[in-house]
Amino acid sequence: MENQIIQTRLKSMREQMRLAGIDYYMVPTADFHNSEYVNAYFKVREYLCGFTGSNGTLVIEQDRAGLWTDGRYFIQAEKELQGTGVTLFRMLDEGVPTIEEYLERNMKEGEVLGFDGRVVDARRGIGLEKKLAGKKTVFSYGRDVADIVWEDRPPLPCGAIRVLPEKINGKNAGEKLQMVRSSMKERGTDAFFLSKLDDIMWLFNIRGCDVECNPVALSYAYITQTDATLFLQTEAVTPEAEQYLAQYGVAVKEYGKVMEFLQCVPEKTKILLELANCSYAIYKTLAERTELVDAPNPTEHLKAVKNEVELSYMREVYEKDSAAVCKFIYWLKKNIGQTEITEVSAAAYLDHLRSEIDGFLDLSFPTISGYAENAAMMHYEATEECHKVLEPKGMLLVDSGGQYLGGTTDVTRTIVLGEITDEMKRHFTAVASGMLQLSAAHFLYGCTGRNLDILARQPLWDLNIDYKCGTGHGVGYILNVHEGPQNIRWRFTDGMEEAVIEPGMDVTNEPGVYIEGSHGIRTENVMVAVNGEKNGDGQFMHFETLTFVPIDREAIDPACMSRENLERLNAYHRQVREKITPYLNEEEAAWLYEVTEPIG
Amino acid sequence: MENQIIQTRLKSMREQMRLAGIDYYMVPTADFHNSEYVNAYFKVREYLCGFTGSNGTLVIEQDRAGLWTDGRYFIQAEKELQGTGVTLFRMLDEGVPTIEEYLERNMKEGEVLGFDGRVVDARRGIGLEKKLAGKKTVFSYGRDVADIVWEDRPPLPCGAIRVLPEKINGKNAGEKLQMVRSSMKERGTDAFFLSKLDDIMWLFNIRGCDVECNPVALSYAYITQTDATLFLQTEAVTPEAEQYLAQYGVAVKEYGKVMEFLQCVPEKTKILLELANCSYAIYKTLAERTELVDAPNPTEHLKAVKNEVELSYMREVYEKDSAAVCKFIYWLKKNIGQTEITEVSAAAYLDHLRSEIDGFLDLSFPTISGYAENAAMMHYEATEECHKVLEPKGMLLVDSGGQYLGGTTDVTRTIVLGEITDEMKRHFTAVASGMLQLSAAHFLYGCTGRNLDILARQPLWDLNIDYKCGTGHGVGYILNVHEGPQNIRWRFTDGMEEAVIEPGMDVTNEPGVYIEGSHGIRTENVMVAVNGEKNGDGQFMHFETLTFVPIDREAIDPACMSRENLERLNAYHRQVREKITPYLNEEEAAWLYEVTEPIG
Repeated sequence: MENQIIQTRLKSMREQMRLAGIDYYMVPTADFHNSEYVNAYFKVREYLCGFTGSNGTLVIEQDRAGLWTDGRYFIQAEKELQGTGVTLFRMLDEGVPTIEEYLERNMKEGEVLGFDGRVVDARRGIGLEKKLAGKKTVFSYGRDVADIVWEDRPPLPCGAIRVLPEKINGKNAGEKLQMVRSSMKERGTDAFFLSKLDDIMWLFNIRGCDVECNPVALSYAYITQTDATLFLQTEAVTPEAEQYLAQYGVAVKEYGKVMEFLQCVPEKTKILLELANCSYAIYKTLAERTELVDAPNPTEHLKAVKNEVELSYMREVYEKDSAAVCKFIYWLKKNIGQTEITEVSAAAYLDHLRSEIDGFLDLSFPTISGYAENAAMMHYEATEECHKVLEPKGMLLVDSGGQYLGGTTDVTRTIVLGEITDEMKRHFTAVASGMLQLSAAHFLYGCTGRNLDILARQPLWDLNIDYKCGTGHGVGYILNVHEGPQNIRWRFTDGMEEAVIEPGMDVTNEPGVYIEGSHGIRTENVMVAVNGEKNGDGQFMHFETLTFVPIDREAIDPACMSRENLERLNAYHRQVREKITPYLNEEEAAWLYEVTEPIG
Repeated sequence: MENQIIQTRLKSMREQMRLAGIDYYMVPTADFHNSEYVNAYFKVREYLCGFTGSNGTLVIEQDRAGLWTDGRYFIQAEKELQGTGVTLFRMLDEGVPTIEEYLERNMKEGEVLGFDGRVVDARRGIGLEKKLAGKKTVFSYGRDVADIVWEDRPPLPCGAIRVLPEKINGKNAGEKLQMVRSSMKERGTDAFFLSKLDDIMWLFNIRGCDVECNPVALSYAYITQTDATLFLQTEAVTPEAEQYLAQYGVAVKEYGKVMEFLQCVPEKTKILLELANCSYAIYKTLAERTELVDAPNPTEHLKAVKNEVELSYMREVYEKDSAAVCKFIYWLKKNIGQTEITEVSAAAYLDHLRSEIDGFLDLSFPTISGYAENAAMMHYEATEECHKVLEPKGMLLVDSGGQYLGGTTDVTRTIVLGEITDEMKRHFTAVASGMLQLSAAHFLYGCTGRNLDILARQPLWDLNIDYKCGTGHGVGYILNVHEGPQNIRWRFTDGMEEAVIEPGMDVTNEPGVYIEGSHGIRTENVMVAVNGEKNGDGQFMHFETLTFVPIDREAIDPACMSRENLERLNAYHRQVREKITPYLNEEEAAWLYEVTEPIG
C-alpha cells in the first residue's frame, strides 16, 4: 500500500531540492541545540518520512531516499516506512554503511549536499567535510529546505521564562559570570559562545519550557570580559526576567538575530566554542573570521558541581519525591489483583502523586513503566494504544523523576507483583548488590566513573551477565535529568569525556539485568560525591545517597548476597524508614515499617 | 654534614657545563634503551648526586641542583641527598613542579639545555621542545658531558648471547618476524626500527646479560619486508647465535654502528618507530630524512600474550619457585630467635634456594628484604653496610623472583616473625583481601587494569589508606620482570598506555600498606588472564593464579575479612598445599599443612 501523504511530501522536497540545486538532502533528528528531546517544530524528519522514533536521519535524493536508525527502532521503522519508498538502513548491522560512508560511496564529484546547518552539530559537519574532501562536494547548509514544503508547521516553542528564586541558587548570575570569565581568561580567550541550553539556564539562573521535560528556553549566549549578551525569544522574556538579567549587566537580544550578531563579532576574536555542542552553521559563521578554541564549556563543569544551597534543597526534594514513589509502591502492592492496573495507569498514578508535591514543575522525563518482558526493553514506552495489563505475578519496572523548584530527580524501582522465579531473584539480588556496593564506594580524589564502575557491575559479571549501558549519569539541578561531564561507566568510546568525580557532583547508580522476552530489572538511586578524610595519601571521598525508596525484599535472595551487602541493605532500609515515615499516612507507614525490616 | 665527594663531582660538572656553554644539564636514569635497570656504565645520575634509587632525574645549574623522584623514594632520597646541596623534588606532591614546569619557569630566553640525547627518550625530548618553545631554548643533546667528569667509568657491558632452546618458545624467530611484518603492513610502513631490548630478545629468541636481572643484550633491530638487521656487540655473538639468526635471514651488524646505518636509510622511508621507546638522538637522526609513524611496537603486544607453550613452562617454573619461597619461610620461622638472621642473610638464603632450582639463570631483580619499618620503603635495599638484624617480633617483607629457562617469577610475602600489633593485623588483612578480590575478578573482555584496580585497593581505601604505586604489572617470559603493555592501576599519567587485558597476558597482583617509620606489608601473586564464558553480552574472563605460597595466617584477623575473602583465602591455601607439598621434605610438608589449614 502506498503512503500517499509521505510520497507527496517527498515529491515537494525533491522539487525544492531541484530548484536549489541540491543533489542530496540530509535531515537529522535535532533542534538547534542538540537537545535530548526535540519539539514538534523540529520533527522535520518525522514529517518527511513518517518514522516517529527518537533517533534517525533521512537522506533524500531525486530517485531514492534512506532512513538510518538504531537497533531499538528496526521493527517500528520498517512498519512506519511501508509504502513511503524510503529504504531503511539498519545502523551497526553488518554491511550497512554509515551515512558518511553512503555519501562517500554514492555522491559524484562536485555534487551538492544540502542540510539545515543549524540542526547538524559542528563535529558531524566537519566529519562530513573530511569524508567528502576528495569529491569536491559543495555544502549547502544555509537553508531549511523542508520549511518551504511544511505548510502547517508548528511554531517554534516559546514558553515564558522563569527566574529562579535567588535563595535556591547558591550563586547569583553575577557570581557565575565571574567564574566563567576566569575560565575564559585561563584559556586565553576573549569571548565564549554558548549554545548548550542547560548551561545557559544555569549561568543566568533562569528556566524555560521549550524542550519536553527539560526546563530550558531556546537561547544562545555570548560572553566577553565586559559584556554578556543573551539571545532569547523576546516574547518569552517576562519583565521579571528582564529586570533580573539587567541587574547583572546582561543584554537581551532577539533569539533569531544570533547569526547576524555573530557575523559582526570583531575579526580575530579568540572565541571559546565547544564544537561538540554547537551547530555547524554557527561554527562556519564564526570560523570564517574569528579564532576558535575548541574546549569543553566551562559552564558544564561548574554546573555539575552542586553547591551547598543546591544540595540542601535537593535533599529535601529527594525525600519528598522518594515518599511519592513509596506511596506509589504501597498503592500498587495493595491494589494489584484487586482492580485493573495497566502499565499506563500505573505511570499516571505515580505522575499524579508527584504533581501534588510542593514546587512540582514537570516530570524530568516521561515515566517508563514496563511490565514483565517489556521491562527488558531499555527504552520501552507504554502508550494508550499499546501496553500491558499488570497481573499479580512477575515484576513492574518503573523509572521516573520530577522537576521541582529545588531539584531534579531520577529513580528506578522494580516491584514484585506476585510470584517470581528463582532466576529473577538471583538477578534482582545481584542488581541490588551492585547498586549497594557502588553506593558504599570509598575512593581517592582523582577517580573517574571508569574506576568505580566495576563495583556495580561485578555481581552481574560474576553471573556472566552485563548491561549494555553506563551505570550512571549526572543529574541537573532543576535542569536536564541527564547532564555531564560526570558519569559511571567502564568503557569509553571516542568523544566521551572521562571526568574526575568532584565533591558536589551528583550521579545516578543504576545497574540492571535485561533478559529479552523474559524480564528486566533496574534499581536506581541518585548519590552525591562528598569529601571524607584527607591525609598524606590524598583526599578520600564517598557518596551520600539522596534517594530513599525501599528495595523490594521479596525479590532478594539472602543466600545470594554477601554479609556486607545485606548489612548495607538493612542500613539503607533503616534510613528509608527514618526519612520517609513522616511523609506517610498511618497505613502507608505501617507498610513501610514492614518492608524495611532487616533481613538475612 | 657535607657530602664532599658529591659536591666535588657537581663542581666538575659545572666547570664542564661552563666550558660547553650549557646552563642547565639534565641527567635522567636511563641507558640507551630506557631499560628498567641501568648498568654501572649508565649510573651517571647516581655518580653525580649519590641518590641510588631506580628512578630520578637530576638537573644541574651553576648555583643549584635538583633531584626529581617518586613517592617510593621520598624517604630514601632525603637521606641520600643530605649534605650534597641537591634539593629533593617530590614528584606528584601538591605544588611540586615537574621538571618541564621547573625549566619553563626558571630558564631564561636563549639559555642552553644540555643532556645526552641517547639516554633521553624521544617523547620527553619532544615534550621539552614544546614546553620551552617560547623561550628559544637551545638544545645541546649531542654530548655526554658527564663522561668527561667520570674518570673511572665502568665499560659498556657485553655478555655472551644465548639462543633459547627452540622447544620452549612456542614460536621460532621466523614466525615472529612474519607476525611483525604483517603488523608493519597493516600500518602502512616500510620499515620498523626497534630499540626496546626485551622486544628484540623476544623477537629473535635470544637472551643476553647486559642489564642487571634482565636477560637482554644491548641491541637494535631494523626490519623491512625483506630484511632484518640486528645490531649487537659482535664480541657477544656466539657461533650458535650467529647460526640461529642466519637461519631466519637476520643480518648481524655492530651495535656501535647503528647511527651510521640510520643516517643511510633511504630517504622518505616510512618507518614505524615508538617514540616512547626510542632515544631523542635516534628520533632526531631519523626524523631528518625519513617519515616516522609513531605507534606502539607491535612486538610489545605480541610478547605480552603468552602462548600455550610458554604458559605450560611458566606453570611448572612458578610451582618450583613458590616451593623455594615456602622452604624459605619455613626456615625463617624455625630459626628466628635461634640464630642470627639479618635482612641480608635472609635474602641470601632465599637466593641460594632459588639458585638450586633446575634451569635457574639469575634473579629477576635484586631480592628486597625489609624488616619492620624498612619494609615501608617500597624499594628498600638492604646492604652489607646497612641492614637490620631480624628479631622474633614484627614482620619481614620479602619481594623476590627468579629467571629460569621456562619463565620469570615475582612474588612478595610479608612474614610474621613474632608479636605484631592489631593495627598491623588490620593492615595485613586488608592487603590480603585486596589481593584475593582482584584474583577473583570476573570481567568482560575490553577491561583494562584501570577498570579492575579498585578491587585490590578498596579494602585499603576503606581504611583511608592508599599505596602510591600501581597494583600490578606484566611479567616477561625469561625476560624483564616488568613488561607492558598490560598493568593494573587506577590512574594513568600522560604517556602511559592503557591496554585491554588479553587472554594469555600475565600480571602481578600486589597491593600493600606502607606506614613510614612503622611497617610495610605487601602480598603479591602473579596471575594470567584466561577466557571464560562467551555469550551475547560478550567474552567473560578471569585470572588463573600462578604463585602458590601461603599468606601468613598469623597476621590475618578474620573479624576484618569478609566471608567471601576468607573462603577465597582457604581455597587458595588448599591449592598451595596440593601443588607445593610434593616439592617439600617431611618437616616442611608438615609445616605447610599446618599453615594452610582453613581459618575463619
